[in-house]
Amino acid sequence: MNDTSIEQYKIRKEPYYQSQHQEVAFYEAAYQARLPVMIKGPTGCGKSRFIEYMAWKLGKPLITVACNEDMTASDLVGRYLLDAGGTRWLDGPLTVAARLGAICYLDEIVEARQDTTVVIHPLTDHRRTLPLDKKGELIDAHADFQLVISYNPGYQSLMKDLKQSTKQRFVALNFDYADVDVETGILARETGIDAGIAAKLVQIGGAARNLKGHGLDEGVSTRLLVYAATLMQKGIAAQSACRMALVDPITDDGDIRGTLYHAIDSVF
Amino acid sequence: MNDTSIEQYKIRKEPYYQSQHQEVAFYEAAYQARLPVMIKGPTGCGKSRFIEYMAWKLGKPLITVACNEDMTASDLVGRYLLDAGGTRWLDGPLTVAARLGAICYLDEIVEARQDTTVVIHPLTDHRRTLPLDKKGELIDAHADFQLVISYNPGYQSLMKDLKQSTKQRFVALNFDYADVDVETGILARETGIDAGIAAKLVQIGGAARNLKGHGLDEGVSTRLLVYAATLMQKGIAAQSACRMALVDPITDDGDIRGTLYHAIDSVF
Amino acid sequence: MNDTSIEQYKIRKEPYYQSQHQEVAFYEAAYQARLPVMIKGPTGCGKSRFIEYMAWKLGKPLITVACNEDMTASDLVGRYLLDAGGTRWLDGPLTVAARLGAICYLDEIVEARQDTTVVIHPLTDHRRTLPLDKKGELIDAHADFQLVISYNPGYQSLMKDLKQSTKQRFVALNFDYADVDVETGILARETGIDAGIAAKLVQIGGAARNLKGHGLDEGVSTRLLVYAATLMQKGIAAQSACRMALVDPITDDGDIRGTLYHAIDSVF
Amino acid sequence: MNDTSIEQYKIRKEPYYQSQHQEVAFYEAAYQARLPVMIKGPTGCGKSRFIEYMAWKLGKPLITVACNEDMTASDLVGRYLLDAGGTRWLDGPLTVAARLGAICYLDEIVEARQDTTVVIHPLTDHRRTLPLDKKGELIDAHADFQLVISYNPGYQSLMKDLKQSTKQRFVALNFDYADVDVETGILARETGIDAGIAAKLVQIGGAARNLKGHGLDEGVSTRLLVYAATLMQKGIAAQSACRMALVDPITDDGDIRGTLYHAIDSVF
Amino acid sequence: MNDTSIEQYKIRKEPYYQSQHQEVAFYEAAYQARLPVMIKGPTGCGKSRFIEYMAWKLGKPLITVACNEDMTASDLVGRYLLDAGGTRWLDGPLTVAARLGAICYLDEIVEARQDTTVVIHPLTDHRRTLPLDKKGELIDAHADFQLVISYNPGYQSLMKDLKQSTKQRFVALNFDYADVDVETGILARETGIDAGIAAKLVQIGGAARNLKGHGLDEGVSTRLLVYAATLMQKGIAAQSACRMALVDPITDDGDIRGTLYHAIDSVF
Amino acid sequence: MNDTSIEQYKIRKEPYYQSQHQEVAFYEAAYQARLPVMIKGPTGCGKSRFIEYMAWKLGKPLITVACNEDMTASDLVGRYLLDAGGTRWLDGPLTVAARLGAICYLDEIVEARQDTTVVIHPLTDHRRTLPLDKKGELIDAHADFQLVISYNPGYQSLMKDLKQSTKQRFVALNFDYADVDVETGILARETGIDAGIAAKLVQIGGAARNLKGHGLDEGVSTRLLVYAATLMQKGIAAQSACRMALVDPITDDGDIRGTLYHAIDSVF
Repeated sequence: MNDTSIEQYKIRKEPYYQSQHQEVAFYEAAYQARLPVMIKGPTGCGKSRFIEYMAWKLGKPLITVACNEDMTASDLVGRYLLDAGGTRWLDGPLTVAARLGAICYLDEIVEARQDTTVVIHPLTDHRRTLPLDKKGELIDAHADFQLVISYNPGYQSLMKDLKQSTKQRFVALNFDYADVDVETGILARETGIDAGIAAKLVQIGGAARNLKGHGLDEGVSTRLLVYAATLMQKGIAAQSACRMALVDPITDDGDIRGTLYHAIDSVF
Repeated sequence: MNDTSIEQYKIRKEPYYQSQHQEVAFYEAAYQARLPVMIKGPTGCGKSRFIEYMAWKLGKPLITVACNEDMTASDLVGRYLLDAGGTRWLDGPLTVAARLGAICYLDEIVEARQDTTVVIHPLTDHRRTLPLDKKGELIDAHADFQLVISYNPGYQSLMKDLKQSTKQRFVALNFDYADVDVETGILARETGIDAGIAAKLVQIGGAARNLKGHGLDEGVSTRLLVYAATLMQKGIAAQSACRMALVDPITDDGDIRGTLYHAIDSVF
Repeated sequence: MNDTSIEQYKIRKEPYYQSQHQEVAFYEAAYQARLPVMIKGPTGCGKSRFIEYMAWKLGKPLITVACNEDMTASDLVGRYLLDAGGTRWLDGPLTVAARLGAICYLDEIVEARQDTTVVIHPLTDHRRTLPLDKKGELIDAHADFQLVISYNPGYQSLMKDLKQSTKQRFVALNFDYADVDVETGILARETGIDAGIAAKLVQIGGAARNLKGHGLDEGVSTRLLVYAATLMQKGIAAQSACRMALVDPITDDGDIRGTLYHAIDSVF
Repeated sequence: MNDTSIEQYKIRKEPYYQSQHQEVAFYEAAYQARLPVMIKGPTGCGKSRFIEYMAWKLGKPLITVACNEDMTASDLVGRYLLDAGGTRWLDGPLTVAARLGAICYLDEIVEARQDTTVVIHPLTDHRRTLPLDKKGELIDAHADFQLVISYNPGYQSLMKDLKQSTKQRFVALNFDYADVDVETGILARETGIDAGIAAKLVQIGGAARNLKGHGLDEGVSTRLLVYAATLMQKGIAAQSACRMALVDPITDDGDIRGTLYHAIDSVF
Repeated sequence: MNDTSIEQYKIRKEPYYQSQHQEVAFYEAAYQARLPVMIKGPTGCGKSRFIEYMAWKLGKPLITVACNEDMTASDLVGRYLLDAGGTRWLDGPLTVAARLGAICYLDEIVEARQDTTVVIHPLTDHRRTLPLDKKGELIDAHADFQLVISYNPGYQSLMKDLKQSTKQRFVALNFDYADVDVETGILARETGIDAGIAAKLVQIGGAARNLKGHGLDEGVSTRLLVYAATLMQKGIAAQSACRMALVDPITDDGDIRGTLYHAIDSVF
Repeated sequence: MNDTSIEQYKIRKEPYYQSQHQEVAFYEAAYQARLPVMIKGPTGCGKSRFIEYMAWKLGKPLITVACNEDMTASDLVGRYLLDAGGTRWLDGPLTVAARLGAICYLDEIVEARQDTTVVIHPLTDHRRTLPLDKKGELIDAHADFQLVISYNPGYQSLMKDLKQSTKQRFVALNFDYADVDVETGILARETGIDAGIAAKLVQIGGAARNLKGHGLDEGVSTRLLVYAATLMQKGIAAQSACRMALVDPITDDGDIRGTLYHAIDSVF
């Protein structure tokens, strides 16, 4: 990866983002001090979109890594590759971000092996360094570099939670589903659907979210509401679109399904 | 894999598919909006056949990946191979599909390691991108690309289920065994067997499906009914063919076996 | 592996096989339709011998793979090897069989990792294809190719059983130990032992098989009876030969041993 | 890594460190005798900062390794890499430190696999050697080499604790959060915040630390207090800054959150 | 490994072996028919020595493999190595034995992964073949080849036992500790110790063997008795030699130790 | 590793070792007969020092391997490395010792994977051979070769203990902490501290050792007493030195700590 390739991580056009509270100001303050930021909130409430928006607003490149259990420290930091002339070092996404001054966004950090996350420690305290042990190099982070992680509190379990020594390196921003009016506006804007229908979809979403913890692991995300509206715009009947987008993907339980189908039928 | 090889994934002749409800229209609407689709249903009810049919109908190449527990993200995304001139990147099937605009069908997604599935996340939201972290490349999906997964609700367990953050990226289509008349037609058409005999086989299939959850983990698939008819067409007696195809492959339990043998004997 | 090497998998001389019921006709019907076949039965009842016999009778090459827990999909399908000129693809046994039209016999399939078995799925439905994901190639199976698996119902446990979506791709043939007369004939023919002594050995075998589930995990296979007869032909006394071949290999339990020693003493 | 690269591990400017008790003298005595040192204390109490300060004060290079569960002995000691002319040995950080006379600081040693830690044994007794088994070389440690580990007593569990045979190779220094006055001074000095506000933050920190073991796994580190002060300096209101920095990162529990929000409101 | 290297596996001089029952005749009969042999018995009763003796007596090379949990099928069968001219196949010990006609002795087979053992199946039935799947080669075993395994019945557990489908491929020979007179003779012959003292050592050994299952997992092997006699021959006092060789290596339990020390003191 | 490199394993100067009982004579007798030796005893009682002393006394090179759970048989025996001209075999430390006639000391053998230890079996019976299966070579051990293992009886658990078939290959030497007078002498000699103070330290050590099994997993090693004396020699006050060296490294338990602090205060 050469220096210019960082350009591909610049957000070229403004992402649609509807601010709700003071989160933009809070984030800007944290970025000015380059404090590491933890974005907390349920699935599909707009965490990734917010970071994209902030990267665009701040004019900084954004490197996103979808964390997973199989991710090793080498996947973040880099590794040696075998080349014509022997081995060659390839920076990982965290190293690229640290060298070139990007915002590095570790999505669903809690999925990563708890101990893999320690590689971010020296980047998240006064040192702002990244030791590449395998290469024998110590990187000083670029002045623009910032680390952001997302975290879904509904997920953590005894097996999977961040360690305190990791948590205590971040300031946190709490996210939740958008308010009714804001969400209605998002649906209308993103799919061109009639505002009245959008409001009905948001109403069904609210019903599903009330079932969280009572048979549903998570509520219905704004994304699924957008899917339902999209299907309706493509000519699918409201009930069918809602079943396809708001119920069937998220549950296999017959009772929960019946409850949600009923909620759909009572609205449309 | 060069650009022309995508041709091998085109479906050359129309697969036999007997539509049952509105699933073709639903799928077309989802494809028009390039929404990711989840096909839910029991073993052998025709999920894979349906996707093949839709790929043929839409004229799009289809890349199928049979998911399994050992499948790593690299198996989907690609890896470096050692070549005469050093390492060479080889796109995985998901990357090929994203680059060249195929429908990518991840069969039995729930078998894959739960966390491996996060690599599909950026392809299934507004970004429609696939970051190749190891290559330092960010792919924008081809306009024709669509992701489809299959999912058998009878399978998921505490250990193996899709994460909500994965589920909430799909619209779902529910599949089930074909209706009696449709299934009878399929048997007759696929094997050339007499319609009356086909109806008897479907009757036995129905008996077996009623035992699901009462000693059988799954009902009898249409495929096994086709096998029974095929054996009869090759000269095997009806009872023997039914035992070989409809009972012995699916259960080792003596009581269940007796019940099903009895059902066969009472029909033929 | 070049095309001619398939010759080494041809069965050169007729294996001794004593048919018992209609299994030969059943198998031939399945082979004519190229239906995948599952051979079910206890250890040492002649499953492998039967497949060898059928391969010889049909004049088709036979590729046998002894499945085990460490077997990966690559062991079946193939892998890249490093060569003087870079990497070179090496077909695995399943791929060789599919390309060149052999019967591929996966012995003790239930030992393989449950999820590894999904690689056989596209070869066992209407597609009859084998996708080599790592090579970017889609193989259409040779017209002569057929897949056969063996399966010991006494083995499966909660941890190790075939998935329904695998089982429902096969027709099944049930095997069991040979009848008394047939087995006596086998012993006499294979070892040249006197028919009266052979009958006594079969009698002891029957006693041991009755202990299955009552202290023995499995009965005594025909193979072990052949061993006992062989040792006697080499001059070992009947009691010693029976203890060495029929009791000591299969149990460490003092009581069971006593019971079986007693059965031997009462016969000889 | 060539000999001169050790320079990059020298601490170039004096780290800010506020001594509390006799820890500086204790450490100097241990270093004079080259005794291995174990720094014990809770998350964020300044263990890493102290070692940096001592390395600066003693004028010795410092090599820090953030330990983790995936770290193998090879990650510490070194490995062979493939090069143009065959394999080439690459010293790991522990080996570099032993050869060139650095202080080697193994941060959060308890995270490392218990048995991996045995590689440090011959370096921590009278031998002061490091056998590179894979290279067939026995290194005598440089006269300036010293090993330091950090250890958080609140972490150890049945699964993760140092072995006695490891522990009994170290002298230990106990660390805890700074006293009120010292911590207030640190906040004021590091962020430029008014001393009165700093005192209030320290007061909130004290409240949170009292909840340790009563709903919080750890207290609030000095680092988080610095974050809160920093956010206030960037214009965020006191309550918001405290919630972002002192509460939301460390707990998802509604009750604990309420208690801490209340503590914040009562102070500001 | 070239063809001549098989010579190194020939037993050059007659191993000392004291026959006890008819085991030599039994083994010779099994070898004449090339039946696979399972040697059963407790630790240190002379199983390995017996096989060495038989290999010498039959004039056949002996290849011994100490089985262990990490042993893969490749360790037995062979693997590709990277060479100057690309990859090169290296036969494993089982393959060498099968090709060149050695007795292959798999020591402590029960330690091997249960499923790894399936690679020996085609070598242990009428086929006498070894498929090298990775090489695409099917080996017909040399006429002199025989497979022997050792098995300690006191070891097997629910986790570690041979599968019935493996056991039922062997004839078994039961071994136990030598009789008093034989063992006394062995001690005298191997160490030159006085027969009276040897008898006393055997007496102590008998006492220890009676504790098997009553605080000792295993009795005292003949080897340890030889060790005690050896130490006495080197000038160590009888009590000390017995404690060093017969008690301290096999138990850490204070009571058992006391009992055995007492038995020693009462004999010497 | 070439033949001359064995020189680096010679002990160049006499290690300080204070004999306590007859262990030197016992070891010499075992070495004369080349019997494998097991050194049993608690952490830090001088096991490693004793072996070093004996190696020096016998004038034999000593190769020490710190065993750990990740150690594979290849780490002991050797492996192929990729070189300019293809693969090259690299002897592991056990192989080097067997070839060149060193004492091979496997420290904390119980840490190694139980089954890895089987590779030492053929070296520890009458064969005195080491089969390098991967290289197809059978090594006859050098006449000077001897195997020594250390073993801490307080460690073994259900999960980690040596197998009887391993234990029964060794004579054992029991070690314990030195007697009061001997230990006092060691402290004075090693650190130059006043004998009266040394006696007080030994007194505190005795108090701590009495707590073994009553809150402490292990007693205080002689090494830690040396550390305390060393710190005092460097000017640290007696109480502080004792806390740093004798208490804080070995326990996090407040009560035990209090008890030991009290013992220190009552002595100094």
